[in-house]
Amino acid sequence: MHRIAILGASGYTGAELVRLIATHPAMRIVALSADRKAGQTMAEVFPFLRHLDLPRLVKIDEIDFSQVDLCFCALPHATSQAVISTLPRDLKIVDLSADFRLRDVAAYAKWYGQPHAAPDLQAEAVYGLTEFYRDAIRDARLVAGTGCNAATGQYALRPLIAAGAIDLDRIVIDLKAGVSGAGRSLKENLLHAELSEGTHSYSAGGKHRHLGEFDQEFSALAGRPVQVQFTPHLLPMNRGILATVYVDGDPGVVHATLASAYGAEPFLQVLPFGQLPSTRDVRGSNFCHIGVIGDRMPGRAMIVAVLDNLTKGSSGQAIQNANLMLGVEETAGLMLAPCFP
Amino acid sequence: MHRIAILGASGYTGAELVRLIATHPAMRIVALSADRKAGQTMAEVFPFLRHLDLPRLVKIDEIDFSQVDLCFCALPHATSQAVISTLPRDLKIVDLSADFRLRDVAAYAKWYGQPHAAPDLQAEAVYGLTEFYRDAIRDARLVAGTGCNAATGQYALRPLIAAGAIDLDRIVIDLKAGVSGAGRSLKENLLHAELSEGTHSYSAGGKHRHLGEFDQEFSALAGRPVQVQFTPHLLPMNRGILATVYVDGDPGVVHATLASAYGAEPFLQVLPFGQLPSTRDVRGSNFCHIGVIGDRMPGRAMIVAVLDNLTKGSSGQAIQNANLMLGVEETAGLMLAPCFP
Amino acid sequence: MHRIAILGASGYTGAELVRLIATHPAMRIVALSADRKAGQTMAEVFPFLRHLDLPRLVKIDEIDFSQVDLCFCALPHATSQAVISTLPRDLKIVDLSADFRLRDVAAYAKWYGQPHAAPDLQAEAVYGLTEFYRDAIRDARLVAGTGCNAATGQYALRPLIAAGAIDLDRIVIDLKAGVSGAGRSLKENLLHAELSEGTHSYSAGGKHRHLGEFDQEFSALAGRPVQVQFTPHLLPMNRGILATVYVDGDPGVVHATLASAYGAEPFLQVLPFGQLPSTRDVRGSNFCHIGVIGDRMPGRAMIVAVLDNLTKGSSGQAIQNANLMLGVEETAGLMLAPCFP
Amino acid sequence: MHRIAILGASGYTGAELVRLIATHPAMRIVALSADRKAGQTMAEVFPFLRHLDLPRLVKIDEIDFSQVDLCFCALPHATSQAVISTLPRDLKIVDLSADFRLRDVAAYAKWYGQPHAAPDLQAEAVYGLTEFYRDAIRDARLVAGTGCNAATGQYALRPLIAAGAIDLDRIVIDLKAGVSGAGRSLKENLLHAELSEGTHSYSAGGKHRHLGEFDQEFSALAGRPVQVQFTPHLLPMNRGILATVYVDGDPGVVHATLASAYGAEPFLQVLPFGQLPSTRDVRGSNFCHIGVIGDRMPGRAMIVAVLDNLTKGSSGQAIQNANLMLGVEETAGLMLAPCFP
Repeated sequence: MHRIAILGASGYTGAELVRLIATHPAMRIVALSADRKAGQTMAEVFPFLRHLDLPRLVKIDEIDFSQVDLCFCALPHATSQAVISTLPRDLKIVDLSADFRLRDVAAYAKWYGQPHAAPDLQAEAVYGLTEFYRDAIRDARLVAGTGCNAATGQYALRPLIAAGAIDLDRIVIDLKAGVSGAGRSLKENLLHAELSEGTHSYSAGGKHRHLGEFDQEFSALAGRPVQVQFTPHLLPMNRGILATVYVDGDPGVVHATLASAYGAEPFLQVLPFGQLPSTRDVRGSNFCHIGVIGDRMPGRAMIVAVLDNLTKGSSGQAIQNANLMLGVEETAGLMLAPCFP
Repeated sequence: MHRIAILGASGYTGAELVRLIATHPAMRIVALSADRKAGQTMAEVFPFLRHLDLPRLVKIDEIDFSQVDLCFCALPHATSQAVISTLPRDLKIVDLSADFRLRDVAAYAKWYGQPHAAPDLQAEAVYGLTEFYRDAIRDARLVAGTGCNAATGQYALRPLIAAGAIDLDRIVIDLKAGVSGAGRSLKENLLHAELSEGTHSYSAGGKHRHLGEFDQEFSALAGRPVQVQFTPHLLPMNRGILATVYVDGDPGVVHATLASAYGAEPFLQVLPFGQLPSTRDVRGSNFCHIGVIGDRMPGRAMIVAVLDNLTKGSSGQAIQNANLMLGVEETAGLMLAPCFP
Repeated sequence: MHRIAILGASGYTGAELVRLIATHPAMRIVALSADRKAGQTMAEVFPFLRHLDLPRLVKIDEIDFSQVDLCFCALPHATSQAVISTLPRDLKIVDLSADFRLRDVAAYAKWYGQPHAAPDLQAEAVYGLTEFYRDAIRDARLVAGTGCNAATGQYALRPLIAAGAIDLDRIVIDLKAGVSGAGRSLKENLLHAELSEGTHSYSAGGKHRHLGEFDQEFSALAGRPVQVQFTPHLLPMNRGILATVYVDGDPGVVHATLASAYGAEPFLQVLPFGQLPSTRDVRGSNFCHIGVIGDRMPGRAMIVAVLDNLTKGSSGQAIQNANLMLGVEETAGLMLAPCFP
Repeated sequence: MHRIAILGASGYTGAELVRLIATHPAMRIVALSADRKAGQTMAEVFPFLRHLDLPRLVKIDEIDFSQVDLCFCALPHATSQAVISTLPRDLKIVDLSADFRLRDVAAYAKWYGQPHAAPDLQAEAVYGLTEFYRDAIRDARLVAGTGCNAATGQYALRPLIAAGAIDLDRIVIDLKAGVSGAGRSLKENLLHAELSEGTHSYSAGGKHRHLGEFDQEFSALAGRPVQVQFTPHLLPMNRGILATVYVDGDPGVVHATLASAYGAEPFLQVLPFGQLPSTRDVRGSNFCHIGVIGDRMPGRAMIVAVLDNLTKGSSGQAIQNANLMLGVEETAGLMLAPCFP
C-alpha cells in the first residue's frame, strides 16, 4: 500500500480524493491537512466520509513527509506554489491547482496576474492530461493537474488539431459547467437561491484562465499559435461539464479521428456518429463521453464532450496520474461506475 | 373587458395565459377548452389557479364563439391547423403553435414532415414577433406566435442582420433551455430523475424545427439566403432560455446597433457593454435581457439573450400581440416583475 | 399614491417588496436603503428589477422621512430595533424582522439571547398575522411581521386551538422550508453544491426561534400554556414552506373548523377534505393552501399548509398589513397568480 | 466469481444493481432481462453503463438459469410473483419487489388489493432487512427486499421497540423521499417541471403500502399490535430518504439504545447525541446515518434516519443479502463512499 498525503483536504477536490482512495486497492491515506480546520476530523468537515478511518486534519508542517510516498496538493491557486517549494525535493507530488500548468512563466503571469513564485519547480512539472503525457507522467516527480474545463475541451480537440482535421482559426468552445468547479467558497453567486433554476455565462470574452492552457497545448500541437473562443456557463447542477465545440471540418473525418485516437483508452468513450452525450452519464466517475455530429451546412461539425469536473476533471485525473507515478495499474481505483440517477 | 377564450388550457402555455390574464385589466376569460380533460375545473388540472373564478373546461365545439372577442390557441402542432379551420373567419386568433409560423408551406412541409392543412389561413397569418411586426399585428386577424427559441435568437440577431453589422455566414447560436418548453408531456427524458443535475444537447446538427423560422426571417432581412448553426441544450430548470450567439463583427458596433434598435422597447433591455444577463432575472416575466461582449480575438463578438420561454417566448408574447389586436395598451397586464429568487 | 420607503432593500425580502410594489396600484417607492450597498442602483444589486425606475440605494440617514407615508423595515434581527428607535414616532412602519414579534420582552431575551433594546416600541407593536389581527393592524402605527414558519403553523392551527378541536399537548409541526428563508447570506450550508439534491433538519429539538411565536399565540388562544413540537427541514428549493401538522382530533371537525374560519378569506384556501396541497401551487403568490386528512387511527388528523415564505410568509404579508394601515383595499397589489411551473 | 442474473434490468433498481456489481469482487453478470427492451444493449437503455462489457437484454425465457448462481428480480410488483413461480425451485433469488414482504397473505391482499398468487413461495421467503434477519438470510433461498421507506423507519425504530424504550401508541414517521423511489415511470407528477422547486405529501392518511411492513415488523417485535402514523413527502431530489421520527421516550435512552444496537454494524452509523444527519451524506452509498435529539418537552425524542433509497433502501441491500446467501463477505462491493457534492 502506498502512503498518501492530501494537502487541502477540506475542499471539494480534497474530499473527492478521499472518496476515490476509500476503495483504492493500493493507496492508504496517512496524512490530511487543512489549515483553518486543523484539529478537526474529516467526519466533522465532511460527514459523508464518517465511515472511514482517517487521520485527523493537521497543519502542513505537522506532517512527516518521510513517511509519505505521494502527496496530492489540493490547495488554492498561488498557495500551492508557496507550499510545494517547502516540501522535500524527492517527494512525488500531484498538484491539482493551476500553479504549474503553464510551462511559460510569462503566460502564467499574464493569466494569473502575478509573477510565478517557483519557476524552478515549474521547469520540472509535467502537464497532467494523462492520455497525452502518459510517458512523461510515469517518470515525473511533479505533475500539474489540468483545469477541468481545459481537460474537457482538449479531449474534444487534441486529436483533431494534431491530425490537421479542422480549421484552427474557427474553433468555438461553448461550455456548461456544474457549480462544484467553483469550490466550497462563500460567494453570493454560488448560493442555491441565486443559482438554482437559472443559468448565465461567466468569464466570457476571452478572459477565462483556462484559455492559457488551451493556448499552450493547442499551439504546441499545431506548431503555430492557435486561439479558440471559449465561453463557460454556470448551470444549476453540482457536478459535470459539457463542452459543445463548433469546428470547421468534415464531420465524418472528425468522428473517425477521435474514435481512432481513443479506441484503446479505458476512460474515453467515443459514441457512435450522430449520438451526443449527457453529463448525467458520467457523474461521479472518471469517464469522458464524446460525441460528434455534422451540421446541415457542409464542412461544419460539432463535438460534444462530457466529464465530471471533480473526477476526470480533477481528482480522478490526479489519481490516474498518481497510479502511473507509483507503478500501479493506471485504472486502479477508478473504475467506479457513474452514479445515475 | 374583452372576452377571451383559450383552447388547449390544460398545457403549460395555456396555464401561463390564465396566470397572466388573472391580473390583466382588459381581458376576461369566458371559455377554456381541453379535449381530454373536458368537464374538469382548472383547479383540478392546475391547483395553482384555484383562487380564480374560471369557467369549467369544455370541448371546443361547446364554445359559443359569437361571445368571444379573441381566442388563444394553445393546441399541439398540427392540431391547431385543423381546429382553426373550423372557427369563425372573423374571430381574432392568436395561435401559439408552430402551424402558421412559416409563410412558405413548402418550408412547413420540410420542417414538420407533413403538408400544410390550411394554406389559405397561412396566407393571412402574421408572424408574431411583436417588436418587428407591430403594425401588421395590429391589423391582423390571425397571428402566429413564434417559437420560444426562435424568438430568443431573433432578439439577439435581427438588428445586426438588418444593419449588415455581422458576417452572415458565421453565426452560431448555442442555446440553453429550461424544460417547460417541452410541455406537460410524458416523456422519459423529461422526468426529474433523468433531467435533474445534468445537461445534454438535443435536436442538434441542424435539425431543430425552429431553424425554419430563423431561415425565413434572417433571409428576408438580409435579402439573400442565410443559414445559422443552432444547437439547443436542455437544462435542469423549469423556465428560461439563454442564447449565446457567436458572430463575426465589431463588438462595439454590435452593442450600439442593439442598444439603438431596442432603446424604446418596453420589454427588451440591452445591458451596458460587457455585461451579460442571467435567466433568473427574467423568470416569470415578459422581459428579454440582452448583453454584448467582445472576444480577445478582434472582430469577434458574443451576444447573450435571455427570456422566459413561457412568457416572452410564448404566452406573454401572445398577450402582447392580443393587446395590439384589441386596441389595448401593448404592455397591459405584462409589467409583472420577474420572480426572483 | 402612497409614498413608500424600504429599509434593507438589498436582501431577499426587500427585493420581494419591490417586486410586489412594482404593480401595486396605490404605492410608489420613494426611498430605498442598503447600508453596505449605498450608492448602487437596484439594477446592480438585483438585475431582475432593472426595468423599474427606482431611487438609488442610500444610507438610512439620507432619507427624508417627512416625505414618506409608510416604511417597510427589512433589516436583520436586532438591527431593526436600533434603527426603528431613531425613526419619527408618527411614521407608519411595517417591520419584517423578529424584533417586535414577542410581546413579552423576557420571551424575546430568552429566544434571541439578548435584552430587548426598545421595550417602549414593543409595547405599541401589533403582531402582523393579518387575518387574526386585522382590526388592530388597521389602527396600528408599528406592525411586526410574523416569522414565515410561524405564519404557516398558525394558519394550520389557530382556529383549531380557538375552537378546542384538538388535544393541546399532542401537536407536532414537521416543516419543510425552501432556502430563501435563510436570506442572501454567505453560509456554507446555503451553497448550491451543499444543498441541492439533499435535505436535512435544522434548529431541531425545540430550539428554533419561531417557537417563541407559537408559544405566545397558541397560549393566548388557549388561555393556558401550550407547547408544540416543531422541526424545520431545509429543502433544495428556493421558495416555499410546507407544514405537516399532526394533531389528535376528529379529522372531519378539524376540516370543518378550518373551512368555516377561512371561508371568507381572500388568501387562505381550504382544499376539499382529503386533498393536500403542494408548495409549487403558491410559488410567488400571497396565497396559502390548506388541506386536512384523517389517519387510519381514529381521532388522529393531519393538516398540511403551504405558502411562499417570501410572499405570504413575509413581504406579501407586509404589504397586506400596509394596505390596511393606509386605508387601501386589503388585497391591492397582491392578487398575482402563483408562478407555475 | 458467482454468476448473476438480473430480471428487470431496465428500471432504476436494476441499473443500480449493475452499477454496484460493476466493481464487486465476487459477482459477474451473466444475464439481463427487460421485457419491452429485449434485444437492446444496456448502453442504449442506460448510457452511463456504456463502459461495461454486459450481456444484451433478453426476455426472461431466453435465460438458461442452470448457468446462474443467484438471480435478482427487479420487476414490478405483482409481476414478480408470477415470474418467480416459473423459475427453478433451487435457484437463489433476491426479490426487490413488494411481492414477498408480507408474511400474512391476507395482509398482502389488504395492502396490495389483490390475492397473493404464490402463497407457497411466500411461505419460504425471508424478510430482507439484513441487520435483523442475517442468519435466516444466510440460509434462505428466496429473500424479499424491504420497501425503501420501510427500511428507513425500521432502522430508526426497531431497537427502541425491542427494548421497550418508547410509547408504542405515539409514533409518528414523517418521511421525505427523493423521486427515484417512484421508478422510471411516465407519470405527470414525476416530470421535472412539476416536481422541481416544490414539495408535497403523497399516500398520506395511513394509506401507504409500506405501512404493511411497519405493522408486521413492529407488532412482531412488540408482541402486540403496533400502528404508526406515517406520511411520506416527495422532494425535488433524485436519491435519498430522510425519516423524521417523533417518539415519546427518554432521549438519552433512545440514543444509547440505538448506539448500542448498531455499534458493530458496518453500514449503520449512529451520530453523537444531538447531531442529525443529511441525505447528501449517504448519496450513492449503502450507509444509513442515524441521529437522535431531545425535545424541550421532557420525555419526547426525535430520531432522524437517512439512507439512499436505491442503494441501502433497495439494490445495495439486495447485494448485501446476496453476499450472505453466496457465502461472500457481507460488505463485498458495498464500501463505495457516498458521492458528495
